[in-house]
Amino acid sequence: MAAKAARTFSIGLDYGTNSVRALIVDTGDGREVATHVFDYPSGEAGILLDPRDPHVARQNPADYIDGFIVSVREAVKKAKRKAGFRPDRVIGIGVDTTGSTPMPVDRRGEPLAFRKEFKRDLAAQAWLWKDHSSHAEAAEITRKAADYPVKYLAKCGGTYSSEWYWSKILHCRRTAPRVFKAAYSWVELADFVPAYITGRTDPDTMPRGICAAGHKAMYSEEWGGLPSKEFLASLDPDLAPLRDRYTDKAVPSDRQAGELIAPVAKKVGLPAGVPVAVGAFDAHHGGVGAGAREGTLVKIIGTSTCDIMVAPGDRALPDVPGLCGIVPGSVIPGMYGLEAGQSAVGDIFNWFVQHLVPARYGRGSAAHEKLSREAARIAPGASGLLALDWNNGNRTILVDPLLTGLVLGQTLHTTAAEIYRALVEATAFGALTIINRFEEYGVRVGEVVNCGGISEKNAFVMQIYADVCNRPMKISASGQTCALGAALFGAVVGGAYEDTAAAQRRMTGVKQKVFRPDPRHAAVYAELYALYKELHDAFGTPGHTGSLYHVMKDLIAIRDRARKA
Amino acid sequence: MAAKAARTFSIGLDYGTNSVRALIVDTGDGREVATHVFDYPSGEAGILLDPRDPHVARQNPADYIDGFIVSVREAVKKAKRKAGFRPDRVIGIGVDTTGSTPMPVDRRGEPLAFRKEFKRDLAAQAWLWKDHSSHAEAAEITRKAADYPVKYLAKCGGTYSSEWYWSKILHCRRTAPRVFKAAYSWVELADFVPAYITGRTDPDTMPRGICAAGHKAMYSEEWGGLPSKEFLASLDPDLAPLRDRYTDKAVPSDRQAGELIAPVAKKVGLPAGVPVAVGAFDAHHGGVGAGAREGTLVKIIGTSTCDIMVAPGDRALPDVPGLCGIVPGSVIPGMYGLEAGQSAVGDIFNWFVQHLVPARYGRGSAAHEKLSREAARIAPGASGLLALDWNNGNRTILVDPLLTGLVLGQTLHTTAAEIYRALVEATAFGALTIINRFEEYGVRVGEVVNCGGISEKNAFVMQIYADVCNRPMKISASGQTCALGAALFGAVVGGAYEDTAAAQRRMTGVKQKVFRPDPRHAAVYAELYALYKELHDAFGTPGHTGSLYHVMKDLIAIRDRARKA
Repeated sequence: MAAKAARTFSIGLDYGTNSVRALIVDTGDGREVATHVFDYPSGEAGILLDPRDPHVARQNPADYIDGFIVSVREAVKKAKRKAGFRPDRVIGIGVDTTGSTPMPVDRRGEPLAFRKEFKRDLAAQAWLWKDHSSHAEAAEITRKAADYPVKYLAKCGGTYSSEWYWSKILHCRRTAPRVFKAAYSWVELADFVPAYITGRTDPDTMPRGICAAGHKAMYSEEWGGLPSKEFLASLDPDLAPLRDRYTDKAVPSDRQAGELIAPVAKKVGLPAGVPVAVGAFDAHHGGVGAGAREGTLVKIIGTSTCDIMVAPGDRALPDVPGLCGIVPGSVIPGMYGLEAGQSAVGDIFNWFVQHLVPARYGRGSAAHEKLSREAARIAPGASGLLALDWNNGNRTILVDPLLTGLVLGQTLHTTAAEIYRALVEATAFGALTIINRFEEYGVRVGEVVNCGGISEKNAFVMQIYADVCNRPMKISASGQTCALGAALFGAVVGGAYEDTAAAQRRMTGVKQKVFRPDPRHAAVYAELYALYKELHDAFGTPGHTGSLYHVMKDLIAIRDRARKA
Repeated sequence: MAAKAARTFSIGLDYGTNSVRALIVDTGDGREVATHVFDYPSGEAGILLDPRDPHVARQNPADYIDGFIVSVREAVKKAKRKAGFRPDRVIGIGVDTTGSTPMPVDRRGEPLAFRKEFKRDLAAQAWLWKDHSSHAEAAEITRKAADYPVKYLAKCGGTYSSEWYWSKILHCRRTAPRVFKAAYSWVELADFVPAYITGRTDPDTMPRGICAAGHKAMYSEEWGGLPSKEFLASLDPDLAPLRDRYTDKAVPSDRQAGELIAPVAKKVGLPAGVPVAVGAFDAHHGGVGAGAREGTLVKIIGTSTCDIMVAPGDRALPDVPGLCGIVPGSVIPGMYGLEAGQSAVGDIFNWFVQHLVPARYGRGSAAHEKLSREAARIAPGASGLLALDWNNGNRTILVDPLLTGLVLGQTLHTTAAEIYRALVEATAFGALTIINRFEEYGVRVGEVVNCGGISEKNAFVMQIYADVCNRPMKISASGQTCALGAALFGAVVGGAYEDTAAAQRRMTGVKQKVFRPDPRHAAVYAELYALYKELHDAFGTPGHTGSLYHVMKDLIAIRDRARKA
């Protein structure tokens, strides 16, 4: 570990849905030295949309490169004003990103989007994680994989998602053949950034992270890496060659992807040669930055939620249906990484504020604050409302993008604050469904550590999560656990620690403030959750039948009781 | 009929939910001479609310009296500026009101609300039609009536409503015993106004209209008037005496309630002694004013909807389950009056505009216009949304106030205009469900004539009704069919016509503009209606089971098709 006499620093890059953050930390204690955020300039808050298809969500790869340069350069500038920091004491860089966010590249690894002919072609851009346009392809992959002798979906919950690598490539093959043909390979954003800044962009040999490969591309050492050419050809013959244009062995983030090349180093004000860790998804680095260990569920709550757990790597784990993935080394090298998630959380609240909130609430974060204040005064059950959190589909446990939102229980007096609260509660019910699924399959959830913007900023939301889940909700000490996790891996590849666990012990922690469940609220929420689960199963499960006649009546009874209390 | 040489006039009073309108017409052709609207000053837009119970909706009876005086006085003033009008040529007055809106009165027929001790007591006010606080009592009456040898509910759809007379009285008995004890009798607003202005307020002998009695108080000549004392006592022993404090024979609106008394006449600028017709509900007079005849469904579309048909009185009608009522003479004397309705229509749109519309749409009617314009550009099915129109419960065909709203199909891109359209469509689906119910029981719907504010003002809504119902939608020539119907009965009791039909032939008609269904839209709506009906039955029908798994998926498929078209 770093002795006080020789303070060293590492940099974590966290590529989010709308912006990228660079975080410079002290490797000795994980404390923030400086940070800078770069908002992606393209599209609508960084997202390229298609007005004819709400499933489409793409990004301009140039935003990623500009984002690296500007955010690191500005963070370094700020850090230089702090005592003890010097650019030559930066010992490593780590990178995490949203995902699965693959982009088509040419033989040299250059994004097709950079070519003039494809500049305006949505199919040639990066396909953002929340792009659901390939839902038909996802269903086809699920179907074909189920019939295939090798159980390629055993590690990702039994259902392939429209958010993932092969669905998107197959959809491009079918709907944008010109782009598909021009693409030599497809590179995840998490691999693209380390490759670009270390100059190792050749698609055949660039390091590919086990996190993206294992969770999204059906990569597993059990079957020798990516799915076989035969299987890929069964989806489309043109997919088979892609298998050869990929690394033989995907690796975790405690491995070095390469060293910062001089032209990039110069632009950001760092020396060339700084070690860069293999990239991974934001949630997985966030899990590490929040102190993920056996029995700890880390929830990264932002526009969507990722739920991360780890389990010992030395004994077999059951395959848990509906989980996004179970991948060795995807979170902490040497342990199984388990990923679940909700396709939209903050995005649902933002949608509501953007489209359905009257003038008196103001806009943006002011509206969120005012709604949260009003909604906090409403007792559990008193609105009579119940909602499903499926505005962007359901990732865990249904793994189904072809689901939509639902709000039920409106009267002629229902207010915006009541609906806002119902939407928050819906996401909490979704969170509880994930916790229950872990435990049903023997993965005990001993504590919950939350991180991400919402957990930091919104005590109202976190109290509802505690009440709905009937568990204490802890908050990560760092406000930037994803970037911190990335920086932690920068510290590891830079040699400050011998392994990830050692780095976690020094660099991570939780806040003193813990949100504890109110037993009376928890009792009401137990009733509401039973109704939520009925709607969840009725609309989300094939063949499920049962009477829903009582749902509105029960909600009215709960409401009347809550208002009289 | 009135000859040109001797033009005469009649006045119709239409007591709505938020205001009362006085309309002076020429009895020769029904044309408007003058009108004046008085907004009820009490409460929130005339409604007294209870923040603890969204079911409560009361009104201050003083507003009704002030409303008569001011609206008639001002209308007469305006009419006097028109050539040919003279107050002494007013030959009759008719009155219609919302209902069932009963109020407790003392031995002399004076509302208890006028006493100092009860001035602020919500239970002593008029219980507005849309007050649903007595839903438990309604369910109890339904249950007990079902077990009773006399089938008291056969004429009102088999289910007693929380909106109706006895439910409200029984709820008052149980929750406000002091008010109940002080009440000698309970008087419908439709009877109260004619009684008050003719001085015939003695509850025992004041004329009671067959419309309110038959539709809401289980009155039928088949069983000798109101339900027996034994039955009423089975609800509560204290209800039985009320049977004696009621007229023996309820009468239709072509009968005279009395003559305008001098003190009232003086205040409004009319001669004393003008004949006043027996009162009825707004929808029933509206049906008459819109030209209701066999095969014509009249829809009065306002905050709620009333659906009125008539059927020949000389042959037996089947009892139609879920209809609000089948009462001889309630619409046109000598014919069966059939009433159905939706508990909220305009109220749902108003609720949405008041609570869930962002600043850029403006407020009130400007917001309705802008939303309608935007929503009109959305193709049927293109929003992917489906809603239930139950924010105020369901009157026909489920007769269940314990139902609530539902909106389904939201994504992260769903707009306010899309939801507005979905809510309009939901009310159209509700309208179609009523048409289907009439026809399932052999009451043929040959044409639909719409009246009321929304049909007048909102072409967007009427086109959706035409497309959803796949029928032409006609619009009544008069913009004030309820008040016109009341004035028409004023003309009848004033002697201008020998019967209602003769008056209708001269005084009513439809506009040239007819909204005709677009076959392509109708085809999409047939698909959406099938899904609506599944939700309707799943949430609204006891014991109904079936899979709803396909609903969100079908909506997405319809949406994707509609957006590509």
